[in-house]
Amino acid sequence: MNYQSHISYFQSLLGNKQVLTDTEQLERCASDETEDLHFLPQIVLQPETVEQVSGIMRYCNEHLIPVTPRGAGTGLSGGALPVQGGVVLDMKRFNKVLHIDKRNFQVTTEPGVITQVLMDAVKDEGLFYPPDPASKGSCFIGGNVSENSGGPRAVKYGVVKDYVLNIEMVLPNGEIIWTGANVLKNATGYNLTQLVVGSEGTLGVITKIVLRLIPAVKHDLLLLVPFRSAVQACEAVNAIFIAGYTPSALEFMERDALEWSMKYVQSTGVDLPEDIQAHLLIEVDGNHMDQLYKDAEAISEIVQKFDTGEILFADSHEQKQMLWTLRRKVGEAVKSNSIYKEEDTVVPRAELPELLRIIKETGKQYGFQSVCYGHAGDGNLHVNIVKGNMSDKDWQHKLPEGIRVLFKEVVRLGGTISGEHGIGLVQKNYMDIAFNSVQLGLMKQIKHVFDPNGILNPGKIFPD
Amino acid sequence: MNYQSHISYFQSLLGNKQVLTDTEQLERCASDETEDLHFLPQIVLQPETVEQVSGIMRYCNEHLIPVTPRGAGTGLSGGALPVQGGVVLDMKRFNKVLHIDKRNFQVTTEPGVITQVLMDAVKDEGLFYPPDPASKGSCFIGGNVSENSGGPRAVKYGVVKDYVLNIEMVLPNGEIIWTGANVLKNATGYNLTQLVVGSEGTLGVITKIVLRLIPAVKHDLLLLVPFRSAVQACEAVNAIFIAGYTPSALEFMERDALEWSMKYVQSTGVDLPEDIQAHLLIEVDGNHMDQLYKDAEAISEIVQKFDTGEILFADSHEQKQMLWTLRRKVGEAVKSNSIYKEEDTVVPRAELPELLRIIKETGKQYGFQSVCYGHAGDGNLHVNIVKGNMSDKDWQHKLPEGIRVLFKEVVRLGGTISGEHGIGLVQKNYMDIAFNSVQLGLMKQIKHVFDPNGILNPGKIFPD
Repeated sequence: MNYQSHISYFQSLLGNKQVLTDTEQLERCASDETEDLHFLPQIVLQPETVEQVSGIMRYCNEHLIPVTPRGAGTGLSGGALPVQGGVVLDMKRFNKVLHIDKRNFQVTTEPGVITQVLMDAVKDEGLFYPPDPASKGSCFIGGNVSENSGGPRAVKYGVVKDYVLNIEMVLPNGEIIWTGANVLKNATGYNLTQLVVGSEGTLGVITKIVLRLIPAVKHDLLLLVPFRSAVQACEAVNAIFIAGYTPSALEFMERDALEWSMKYVQSTGVDLPEDIQAHLLIEVDGNHMDQLYKDAEAISEIVQKFDTGEILFADSHEQKQMLWTLRRKVGEAVKSNSIYKEEDTVVPRAELPELLRIIKETGKQYGFQSVCYGHAGDGNLHVNIVKGNMSDKDWQHKLPEGIRVLFKEVVRLGGTISGEHGIGLVQKNYMDIAFNSVQLGLMKQIKHVFDPNGILNPGKIFPD
Repeated sequence: MNYQSHISYFQSLLGNKQVLTDTEQLERCASDETEDLHFLPQIVLQPETVEQVSGIMRYCNEHLIPVTPRGAGTGLSGGALPVQGGVVLDMKRFNKVLHIDKRNFQVTTEPGVITQVLMDAVKDEGLFYPPDPASKGSCFIGGNVSENSGGPRAVKYGVVKDYVLNIEMVLPNGEIIWTGANVLKNATGYNLTQLVVGSEGTLGVITKIVLRLIPAVKHDLLLLVPFRSAVQACEAVNAIFIAGYTPSALEFMERDALEWSMKYVQSTGVDLPEDIQAHLLIEVDGNHMDQLYKDAEAISEIVQKFDTGEILFADSHEQKQMLWTLRRKVGEAVKSNSIYKEEDTVVPRAELPELLRIIKETGKQYGFQSVCYGHAGDGNLHVNIVKGNMSDKDWQHKLPEGIRVLFKEVVRLGGTISGEHGIGLVQKNYMDIAFNSVQLGLMKQIKHVFDPNGILNPGKIFPD
């Protein structure tokens, strides 16, 4: 394809400095945080207005140029990788929080705002945007919306989809639309907003997002509970809910996850006796400190009915920060340790002990080692499969068979193959496990409605 | 069309007693609770298995017979009316709560279960399904899902869409699919579940629903606050939220709404001084009674900064029941009083005072009288327009112009034309106010993906 004439067109549309073709920029946009994948685009575009996005899309649609939208590149399923080359639409210039509507508890933001920056901005106004993926310090809110991200607080506060009221997006043909209205209740036509949330940049390019907010919560308490049995830790998760408590976080970490993370961040903050197999990190939050102490005590009593070690009760800001850092860095720590693949299984919560058993069993059978951790309160368990001593051949051929077996079990338990990371590139050939040809057919046709030429984020979600 | 041969086919498929063609049954299915509309079907079918629904749909799709699914017939936008005749698919035999999964806080139900019956069934297990439309004692959960219903508790607990995890449905071609998985987090493909919620029976026939539940809440308190200014009552709504309180209900009633409802149910429970223009009905709930008293007191102090009368504090079960009955019966009371049209406007919450002002202003201009009430905490205001002395000609021609003006203002305020009643038949010709041709075009094409022959609930949602 003659990219030189395209480049000239984009330069006339955007100005030279927003059209990037140097190796450094192309390389930057060739990868994200998913494994060690690498796909070079021909051009990186950095639009800064919705009209520019519209112009780009119209042109690419006419010329059948693949366009892959990119947020911060922190994705874990390869959603931002330009697998067919072409244009990467780098949304980093859409970096403004446009309007905090304190009267209506809403914020209108551009997609290229770092999630933590958005959280801090609304917190300054006494408001709270809860969804907090582990990468919140670097990921973009637009990527969060595209993947329907979660994070530890989802267990109490819900995931991104529960906060998105309205989206401005550019369709592949260049049309600019809003998907809904800025209201808490809406029974007006099909829910385009929720169709776009989690659609992984395949239906349109998000240019504005209206989020609902809630009043800021004043206090929280954090407990780290060590268990001598990882399966019992999973069982304790459900016991807490059955007793009527809804923690604001309920995270599970296998021993290796915590140990590797401690090494990675060079922390000695947690004592890790030999006989401990797993931990639960449990947070409660609310506006009444006395009530929180009561809740924390009640939860401690519940978990102590299992075979637990000494509970660490974090009451200083520093100690809480330390524990959260350890939890948030698990992914990076495992990555630094070995080549790995990260699965994002999710099941009905009470099936967690069974899921953990199946993961380990399947690992034995197919010869892979795994480190499990994640949002146990939601039944969402990340399975980091480390290559370790596995041969390249087994890694490439035998492991995918094992993953298929695991995913089939997940679906049998009422669950599915991704809770918050999305399908993107790396899970697409497992989609036939979660959906049959009728369901996939509907999804493909919906894709075709929005993107008849198939130019937007091609090669994603749907099986080859 | 030769319906006799169709009838014979359906009799062979379902058995004679599930195929109804007598006048009484056809008449029953010719109306719902929307105004005084009347559309006769040719046949009423009462399937009782998903396979029967599948067989019916496959046959009707081949023979291009219009099919209109019907729940309890309590809809307020004419969604269940067979406007093109044909078959009414009466889902009343799908009346079983199939499985209360206490371990996972989920319930699997058929669509023809009365919402209150479902609520009671899960309550018996210590669980809570919050969405509570005014008609909860008679409406079906399947209708609630189809309309994305709300109700008073939505302000704290969200609407139906926030509880639906997974749907089994029959496509117009007879295929049976599940839309998702039984999990709290899902980033696996497009969100078909949320596309179906609120789609008003136009995409498929719902045959099973999996709902998430939350732990039962132990206590609540109820306040009725009289205001000397209706606009101030709306202003007080936002003041409560700004102060950091989230009531479990925050309902607004204009004086007429309460007065007519009191007459209708022959209640004298509420003192209604001459100078009172409106009331707020405010509920707080939680597990700690002492905290609730504190919250109720704080809210009382906030509202008393406005020009209020004496607050009624309902502390007995009977008094709470009485107040809730008055609130729930407003719709029926207005209906018994006059021919009327019910609008279902929704705006960002802080715009309520402005919305109320616009409604009254537009009424003056176009000569209509209105009684307003509804879920003020969500910005969702029901506008009951009473015919009163309006001439038939003005009712038919001038009123729709006035409604257009009102809806345009609603959209200008960031709102939309239906918060919880749906578009159905009676609002469809206002859809061009909420959406332009690009947005409507996407929705129509999505409809076409699911229902290429246009046989399922035809004549709904989209403008003529």
